[in-house]
Amino acid sequence: MSEHKTIGKNVPKVDIRKKVTGQAQYAADLYFPGMYYGKIVRCMDHAHARVKRLDFSAAQKMPGVVRIIGPDDVTDKPYNTGVLDLMVPKDMGEILGDIEDQHIFTRHVKHQGDAICAVIARTEAAAEQAAAAIVVDYEPLPAYMTAAASAAPDAEQFTPQKPGNRAFQLPAAMFPGNEMAWGDVDAAFAEADFVVEDSFYVPKQKQAQMEPHAYIARYEDDGRLVCWTSTQMPKLVQNKLARLFGLPMSRVKLNQTVIGGGFGTKLGMVGEPETCAMAMAVPGHYVKVLYTREEDWLTSESRHPGDYWMKIGFKNDGTPLAIDARFVNYKGGYYTHGSGTAFTTGGWLAGMYKVGALRYRGESYYTNQVPSGAFRGYGNPQTNFVLEQLIDRACAKLGIDPVEWRIKWHKDVGDDGWCAGVPYLTCALTECLERGAEAIGWKEKRAKYAKQTGPIRRGLGVSVMNHTSGAMPMLLEHTVCTVKLNEDASVEVLVACSDMGQGSHTALQQIAAETLGLPFECIHMKTNDSDDTGFDIGAHASRTVYVGGRAVMAACEDVNNQLRERACVHFERMQIKVSPEDLEVADGQVRIKDNPEKAIDVAEIASVGIYNFVNPQTGEANGVPGQIQGYASYLPSHNSPPFGACFIEVEVDTETGEVRVIESVNTHDIGCAIHPDSVEGQMDGGLQQGLGNVLTEEIYYDENGLCLNSSFTDYKMFGPSDMPKSQNILIEEPDPEGPFGAKSVGEAGAVTPIGATANAIFDAIGIQFTHGPITPEKILKKIKEEGLTF
Amino acid sequence: MSEHKTIGKNVPKVDIRKKVTGQAQYAADLYFPGMYYGKIVRCMDHAHARVKRLDFSAAQKMPGVVRIIGPDDVTDKPYNTGVLDLMVPKDMGEILGDIEDQHIFTRHVKHQGDAICAVIARTEAAAEQAAAAIVVDYEPLPAYMTAAASAAPDAEQFTPQKPGNRAFQLPAAMFPGNEMAWGDVDAAFAEADFVVEDSFYVPKQKQAQMEPHAYIARYEDDGRLVCWTSTQMPKLVQNKLARLFGLPMSRVKLNQTVIGGGFGTKLGMVGEPETCAMAMAVPGHYVKVLYTREEDWLTSESRHPGDYWMKIGFKNDGTPLAIDARFVNYKGGYYTHGSGTAFTTGGWLAGMYKVGALRYRGESYYTNQVPSGAFRGYGNPQTNFVLEQLIDRACAKLGIDPVEWRIKWHKDVGDDGWCAGVPYLTCALTECLERGAEAIGWKEKRAKYAKQTGPIRRGLGVSVMNHTSGAMPMLLEHTVCTVKLNEDASVEVLVACSDMGQGSHTALQQIAAETLGLPFECIHMKTNDSDDTGFDIGAHASRTVYVGGRAVMAACEDVNNQLRERACVHFERMQIKVSPEDLEVADGQVRIKDNPEKAIDVAEIASVGIYNFVNPQTGEANGVPGQIQGYASYLPSHNSPPFGACFIEVEVDTETGEVRVIESVNTHDIGCAIHPDSVEGQMDGGLQQGLGNVLTEEIYYDENGLCLNSSFTDYKMFGPSDMPKSQNILIEEPDPEGPFGAKSVGEAGAVTPIGATANAIFDAIGIQFTHGPITPEKILKKIKEEGLTF
Repeated sequence: MSEHKTIGKNVPKVDIRKKVTGQAQYAADLYFPGMYYGKIVRCMDHAHARVKRLDFSAAQKMPGVVRIIGPDDVTDKPYNTGVLDLMVPKDMGEILGDIEDQHIFTRHVKHQGDAICAVIARTEAAAEQAAAAIVVDYEPLPAYMTAAASAAPDAEQFTPQKPGNRAFQLPAAMFPGNEMAWGDVDAAFAEADFVVEDSFYVPKQKQAQMEPHAYIARYEDDGRLVCWTSTQMPKLVQNKLARLFGLPMSRVKLNQTVIGGGFGTKLGMVGEPETCAMAMAVPGHYVKVLYTREEDWLTSESRHPGDYWMKIGFKNDGTPLAIDARFVNYKGGYYTHGSGTAFTTGGWLAGMYKVGALRYRGESYYTNQVPSGAFRGYGNPQTNFVLEQLIDRACAKLGIDPVEWRIKWHKDVGDDGWCAGVPYLTCALTECLERGAEAIGWKEKRAKYAKQTGPIRRGLGVSVMNHTSGAMPMLLEHTVCTVKLNEDASVEVLVACSDMGQGSHTALQQIAAETLGLPFECIHMKTNDSDDTGFDIGAHASRTVYVGGRAVMAACEDVNNQLRERACVHFERMQIKVSPEDLEVADGQVRIKDNPEKAIDVAEIASVGIYNFVNPQTGEANGVPGQIQGYASYLPSHNSPPFGACFIEVEVDTETGEVRVIESVNTHDIGCAIHPDSVEGQMDGGLQQGLGNVLTEEIYYDENGLCLNSSFTDYKMFGPSDMPKSQNILIEEPDPEGPFGAKSVGEAGAVTPIGATANAIFDAIGIQFTHGPITPEKILKKIKEEGLTF
Repeated sequence: MSEHKTIGKNVPKVDIRKKVTGQAQYAADLYFPGMYYGKIVRCMDHAHARVKRLDFSAAQKMPGVVRIIGPDDVTDKPYNTGVLDLMVPKDMGEILGDIEDQHIFTRHVKHQGDAICAVIARTEAAAEQAAAAIVVDYEPLPAYMTAAASAAPDAEQFTPQKPGNRAFQLPAAMFPGNEMAWGDVDAAFAEADFVVEDSFYVPKQKQAQMEPHAYIARYEDDGRLVCWTSTQMPKLVQNKLARLFGLPMSRVKLNQTVIGGGFGTKLGMVGEPETCAMAMAVPGHYVKVLYTREEDWLTSESRHPGDYWMKIGFKNDGTPLAIDARFVNYKGGYYTHGSGTAFTTGGWLAGMYKVGALRYRGESYYTNQVPSGAFRGYGNPQTNFVLEQLIDRACAKLGIDPVEWRIKWHKDVGDDGWCAGVPYLTCALTECLERGAEAIGWKEKRAKYAKQTGPIRRGLGVSVMNHTSGAMPMLLEHTVCTVKLNEDASVEVLVACSDMGQGSHTALQQIAAETLGLPFECIHMKTNDSDDTGFDIGAHASRTVYVGGRAVMAACEDVNNQLRERACVHFERMQIKVSPEDLEVADGQVRIKDNPEKAIDVAEIASVGIYNFVNPQTGEANGVPGQIQGYASYLPSHNSPPFGACFIEVEVDTETGEVRVIESVNTHDIGCAIHPDSVEGQMDGGLQQGLGNVLTEEIYYDENGLCLNSSFTDYKMFGPSDMPKSQNILIEEPDPEGPFGAKSVGEAGAVTPIGATANAIFDAIGIQFTHGPITPEKILKKIKEEGLTF
């Protein structure tokens, strides 16, 4: 990569100075004179109930109250907070069965925290006090906290559109028998020498991003609805708000504020409908809605928990013959990503190993939990926990080294990926496994720990993953980019891609600078205003650099093509006859490839174009008139997944059940690390969330479906002192479809720690845990149940 | 125009609701938490002086003071506030001799109000108090308040670049002998039966816009300079600030705030350099600078006053044989529009009448007044005052009706306009004169008033003008427009054109709606952010609708072309074979011209393009992928001036000298009135400023060059009760170059009242006044001098 000027360099991240100096404006920081404050009244005492009576009378009289609105004051159009109903091919959307089952304010509470009505007041305190004075009478309904409970024949129905409370199953129109399958699964199992099989449960994990959801909206006097939000999906939220409120999209403006972390919980609408409804109730006034941490926790979408069953059949030589799996997700109170996670989970499974036959059934059932939606990994951590443990169980039985088994059986270049018909173009997973094993001392330590004795036991585990670079072909990826060349050869890049802190804006700016041959500092990314950017699906599916980066490249190449065309005219005035293909754009110049001394400055072409300088003697223009603007509306034709292997070393205290994560090596098949520090940052952050997922994090509910740990005090994440010594290894084998060869990294790092840690514990104490998180209590209980001594 | 859907209709102006409800955000309304306030310390006691000593010590210690900056703390790069040095062809710019002679803070005070240093403080009051505590010692210099004074051989030199303090004369390289001339002027005068000749003085008039200049700037921690300003020229100010502070243009962002009137005083930089310098002194902090009315008055550019001499030779049948003119403008303290007004004045003169020979000498001299720059009419009112009075003097002598003379001798279609080589394509001036005379009862009243007696005398006057629609070919006009089509067939129009209240954004939105065949309400104009809009020269020269409108049309036509192309694919799926030229875009559809029943919705083409919906059966896309975005970088090849005739009836009280304006009829050759109410609004406003120009408005200075009337209290403008009964007549003869045939109106209305009123006074009392404004004092003095009795 040494020929690159900025690609591969750790240039200063474009957002970093503003963030560390406190200048970055998060939604909560924004203040507009005369601003009102909104407070949503939520059902806090029931997970499932009907609203019998709403009484605003006392609250209405309280000082500072401007207006109180409930279900009767807002549109009763239903909506879907997620992305899938918009972005999947129209006919396919109908087949998938995505529905709109959510309302701004509800009369049928489907989870604790559901929104009932809202107060608009002149101060935050007044809004809170009035909200507390609103009287809501409920008729409690049974709280269904598992798929089994809500699937029971006599259960209350969440929506008539989904009988039996089954939100989703693979659609028969695409998958006969509602199964994703290849090969003859039953025949393959019949040939198996043995099977491994188990039932698993992966817990409900919260994104726990630093910035709680926060919004400001204003319905302007000219009929424009303006909303400030830290959404990951500005264009889709713009579209959805326009439809919800019956406005043309050009009358809905989204200002994307600085995002203090998203991880999927800002993927789609969250508090925008309520906030905008409040704003529309007080035209001309700004209304600010700041979620408390508890509100964020109770109402914004989290990871799907679920019941996962899997069976794998093997030959005694380790050959995997068949996989049979049924994954049942707990949907929570609303549909949202009902189809998405259940669908993709099958994909991650299908894309991992060379197995002759596969059958996957994916379903989702409504439950009275906070809705499950998108969360970094989007079903892949769940798959990893199940599949990778069963593989290690088989390896242990066969006496095969788990690394060697994976090197032999992982899917590779040319194999179909997570969706049939999209083969892998590149795959460096073998190198990931080999280099990772080497780095952590796999063989030596595994051999050493096999002989250890005493109550403190160490173990090493590995897991691998394939992820995705965008959602092709399930969702239609699309990013529009406009590149405006100013007269001084500085550049504006207009693109709606979202940077949640992952560094994608920096990477996109590097891509623009590299493609245009201009200094990084001369490029400015304009990304946050829905008025001026074209379509972009939003930040999901680890797609920003892979898809958005190609859009930026394509728009920059459009600029370069125009520069080459115009340079021919400039050269002609110098009596040099060239055609565009003889020229290259580099180092701020358009120059003749074979004779780089002959060059025209980009700034000269640009300024002549804008000011169209005319020679007063001849009356002729000194170049080609018109400002150069490049444009690309890029829809990728492919999806090049990244691969990775995670190695974890743990130490288990068999007397306390405590697990210490000692060391981690993460290897990642990145294609090209455009900004290596950001890539490593993603891997480090993924590790932190992955370790929490497997060891400490779970949203707990009481028997009535009320949350027991809705704050950072009660919800244990991995903190700095919990984190292991860790090392990241980047494998750069350029992918032909990614920008400068890059594949994704955003979610990938969060996928593998769950399986690798579980396998390390298995290696340490010989026990597999099927129900996460693997807490000290569960470890002690299992040691006791199995009567083990150390 | 009946076939149009929105063109010619008085749709609600896009800015009007926000303005009347108080939601419009002027720069002064903007508030950012933690904002600092800046106060510029100005020289108030001298019009010409050198700064000997600057002492911040006492001020520095005052409470609330953050920083004080002077000349040593800022760049010493010189700059030019105006537009011409950027926009004229490069080589021509050198020929014209435009210079940069202004600094952020000066040590050589060139006019009262010149900026010396500035205080940044935490409150406005603290800034003001500290500013008052700064000690500045001056060495006074003589104040030169006329061209004659500063041209004197022993006068202090304003800049070594302009010896003799002559800022400008017509450049010899383009105009041999520094004269714009055609024909043999001396020979023509020799053939004349008689000449009229006189010396005139047109006073210094202030734009007196409602909103004083106001700014906010912030130098962000990522090295971007952001400035909020109500400039008329955002792109040029962006360019100039970038050069001044040595930043790439993409690191300078201009937010154009709502403009509370401009009339030329916001054409170019005013307080942006000082405000940005303050912001750069306190990185990360917002700094707000609000000009007082007095500061606005003393420092922002006003109309050029000057000494104007003209001689016209006639045959006894009224044939004009030759014009000789020397116009000497008072430049004020800095160069700014030094070349512009002196240059164009010759143009207005050249473009008016069919005269066989012409000689024009235009010059500017520095004076110790507030700099003269752009003001509605840009030299044309001065020309009108001089030329039209001399014409009427000749008509009176010849006994020819002034309307008939003008009908006979005004330039017409095919004649060269104000610049040789740009012929008039349309000209409805004859109709303007005929219909205006009819409407005001010209013949009847003139006949009647000819017989009047007594001290109260009525009179009717007429004057005519040619103006301009953009500054072609003197300045290179250019507007870039991007039109983004959303998936619901709503549209964003990104264009940097400035609406100062004249209604141009509404007109541009109408042009977009009409061209796209979409409802007016579905279009949104995004205009105020320099990041997302391409180049636009700015609001000057009455060019916005004529040039910007064509840019918007062209970008919309680009959208339509793409729609037609794509519709062919949609039709093909319906087994209908068509080509783009068979199709038209109208009423939200693309339809077959010969069979309009066959139509595809624009929204369908747009949404398929964005979401690229694929038929799951065939796997084929249902249309063409990609978001449609139209683009135009439009440089007009022409300039189609509007023409107009103004008829004024006055009543002169010969005992008090008072002039009452009784009635006015304004006729305007508009080409097409896109928004008739806005056109009339411009004409009404122009009348108000024109009447003030001729009768009441003048900036007065004492003998030391200090201003005597720097507030609305002391400066008499025409108020509502002073205004006459008035009528506007719009002549719509479509121009082939204007959008939907439109020509300009912005400045035109302010040109003719000056000549028409002077001529009405001449008609009423038989006296011509060569020195404006024509105050009661001047009238009484003249009546007395000439010994007239009534």
